[in-house]
Amino acid sequence: MRQVNVALLGAGTVGGGVVNGLRRNGPLMASRLGVDLQVRRVVVRDVRKTRDFEVPERLISTDWKAAVTDPEVQVVVELVGGTTLAREMILGALRAGKRVVTANKALLSAHGEELFEAAVRHGAGLYYEASVAGGIPIIKVLREALVGNRIARMYGILNGTCNYILTRMKAERAEFGAVLADAQRLGYAEADPGLDVDGYDALHKAGILASLAHGFWVDVEDVAVEGIRNVTPLDMEFAGQMGYTIKLLAAIKTVEGGAAKGRSKGSGKTGAHVSISVCPTLVPNSHVMASVAGVFNAVYVRGDIVGDTLYYGRGAGRDATASAVLSDLADAALDLNCGGEERIPPFVPHERHGAVMPSGEMISGHYLRLNVTDRPGVLARIATQLARNKIGISSVIQPEGHEGESVPLILMLHDAPRKSVDRAMTAIRRLPVVKAEPALFRVENFE
Amino acid sequence: MRQVNVALLGAGTVGGGVVNGLRRNGPLMASRLGVDLQVRRVVVRDVRKTRDFEVPERLISTDWKAAVTDPEVQVVVELVGGTTLAREMILGALRAGKRVVTANKALLSAHGEELFEAAVRHGAGLYYEASVAGGIPIIKVLREALVGNRIARMYGILNGTCNYILTRMKAERAEFGAVLADAQRLGYAEADPGLDVDGYDALHKAGILASLAHGFWVDVEDVAVEGIRNVTPLDMEFAGQMGYTIKLLAAIKTVEGGAAKGRSKGSGKTGAHVSISVCPTLVPNSHVMASVAGVFNAVYVRGDIVGDTLYYGRGAGRDATASAVLSDLADAALDLNCGGEERIPPFVPHERHGAVMPSGEMISGHYLRLNVTDRPGVLARIATQLARNKIGISSVIQPEGHEGESVPLILMLHDAPRKSVDRAMTAIRRLPVVKAEPALFRVENFE
Repeated sequence: MRQVNVALLGAGTVGGGVVNGLRRNGPLMASRLGVDLQVRRVVVRDVRKTRDFEVPERLISTDWKAAVTDPEVQVVVELVGGTTLAREMILGALRAGKRVVTANKALLSAHGEELFEAAVRHGAGLYYEASVAGGIPIIKVLREALVGNRIARMYGILNGTCNYILTRMKAERAEFGAVLADAQRLGYAEADPGLDVDGYDALHKAGILASLAHGFWVDVEDVAVEGIRNVTPLDMEFAGQMGYTIKLLAAIKTVEGGAAKGRSKGSGKTGAHVSISVCPTLVPNSHVMASVAGVFNAVYVRGDIVGDTLYYGRGAGRDATASAVLSDLADAALDLNCGGEERIPPFVPHERHGAVMPSGEMISGHYLRLNVTDRPGVLARIATQLARNKIGISSVIQPEGHEGESVPLILMLHDAPRKSVDRAMTAIRRLPVVKAEPALFRVENFE
Repeated sequence: MRQVNVALLGAGTVGGGVVNGLRRNGPLMASRLGVDLQVRRVVVRDVRKTRDFEVPERLISTDWKAAVTDPEVQVVVELVGGTTLAREMILGALRAGKRVVTANKALLSAHGEELFEAAVRHGAGLYYEASVAGGIPIIKVLREALVGNRIARMYGILNGTCNYILTRMKAERAEFGAVLADAQRLGYAEADPGLDVDGYDALHKAGILASLAHGFWVDVEDVAVEGIRNVTPLDMEFAGQMGYTIKLLAAIKTVEGGAAKGRSKGSGKTGAHVSISVCPTLVPNSHVMASVAGVFNAVYVRGDIVGDTLYYGRGAGRDATASAVLSDLADAALDLNCGGEERIPPFVPHERHGAVMPSGEMISGHYLRLNVTDRPGVLARIATQLARNKIGISSVIQPEGHEGESVPLILMLHDAPRKSVDRAMTAIRRLPVVKAEPALFRVENFE
């Protein structure tokens, strides 16, 4: 049987999962694929560090350059994370003609275009299933299973930490801060949780999915993102009364003839105009995305031929991510069989006129929670500001039983462009009857 | 750009979807894949029949033999259905060295082993994504995305007709017969609905999934199957009271050291022992499978590394099936690039000691609905028969408000081997207080 040798760069959580996975299921994979995957090198920062998995000492070193140029190595797996050394390692490995597997979404988000170009230039292959949504094979689905489809809509619950926190906030009527602290204690949230709870991790993943689906490099740097810090148990309760659950939802939509900026370069051609948002979003309880709970992720994809599809699984963690790396290792090994390059280039830029729509142009319904003085006439003042910006109100909740100077007031707003809503919000914030920073979330009806 | 020529055998519903799909998205697929897919031949029974899609007249013929041996054709798509002519066509095409795409689950279920062997022998490639769960890429997921996993559990809602009927029965408290008639009128059920509503279609698909996941040819001929004809609105209501929804569920489980028959050939070796069931099943409302409604299908897969994953989409219909065929066409075209055979053989028989566990050995909880005489002592007699077979009762519902000589009595039974339950049922059916044929469904808690 043909043997394929692997160099692992990084032996942390996911690296350990890959080593354990190959030990447990390597023979099974060999019988399924006809290829024997062997770990030949493990590159670490500190060779003496204690690890919770077994690697023969002779395989361990700190010399990544020797690993990526080792003529006995055919596939390099980058699991060090970060965007500096990891970039250098991947470029070095591609230059040496190695196939590279990576789980690094932050790196792909920041330097994907450069890395994909390098992979094609060196005919080397770059595999990144583990970079988005862990154990969910969404990269393979978009590149292969749905290759005959135009992707009209994509919705993602892409950050397990946020979904875990929101699920517990809803079930326990608990505050964000308390659940975050507990999640950190249990290992479901990082000590520095900003990348997750402020939405950037989900945005990086959404950018990779959007690029892949729409065939142009989607730069998410200018995309407005909002995390889950402003969601309160009260919001969960009000949303629930109206038949909704609050999720951190990434929404990627194609827009017909919308104004767009970015790559269209004033050519006048209308290409794929795409809107992207990542923010707390009210999802109808009857929709299957509302039932995605805890650390699980899900991606909902609407293709113009296949219709609606959903892919669900663990989005992070040692084993789910390792499973995706094993799948990429299998693909890399099978591509080696074929001699040449990857079956399909890692990213195919086929859309010359693609552009991202400015977030102000995006139309959607909104949930607005205000803290207002408890006296007659307040609603009238707020409704006036909304009306001035042509925003209709579909329902109002003024819950009873709240004591004190200020009380919550919840409004559900009809579909309106975000820039109109933002304009109205500027005026509403200035009203003397409005006592605290309002919370404004999107409503998504999956139409 | 390289051109790949396709012969379509059969131009019915799905054939039309493939033709339309290639017309609409062929250029997009070409830019994504670097391959131009062209329909070169369309083989039909009657060339003069009116069709709701356009095919140039010069491509249409009735001569399938000429089509599968045409040296200009590289890929043959079999969409005629049935198990006689379709088998001949596929074997003929494989013999001629063509790659073959098929959506024919009945054929694969009956003759899959022979067809897969022929594909390997002729180095020709057999692709069958469209044969199971339509637009859900479950074949690709099992063969590629989860290749690093042992599959511990697989649960499928695999028949859209049944799921549509059950969903409407629950929502409208309607009888099976009335909903079936309406489904037939709307085109969601065949004029002869037996293959769907009696569970055989789901069983065929479950057999293909089990074979693929467990690496030995799973013959479902002896597997007990029960369709949905015995489900009543009353069952929906009682199940709902206890927090369950009734689905036609295929359950495929590996069993540790269970007694098994089939391929183990008395070797004494313990291989993958697999239990398979297809029957009406109570699914907890809190489980994501309970929210799979209408014509949608879903497959829930538990891998030993990835954990729990779910794949959801339309299981049938022109476009969803066509999307799967387009994906297979893309794979076939990319495999042609590679010159040789398929990347992975269509079916890899790697488990030498696999066997299917007899259904009597399967352990599960059950829902039992009886029609009994309305007088004291009835429950005692039934409980006695259950106790004699060591079957515990977890709850009993005796709904009030039922008039007449006989009344419904619902029991939830603890986990027990099916053969014990069947033994108890034989005794219970003979009791004079039992007035009609009982309904017995499985309870699945996804453990």
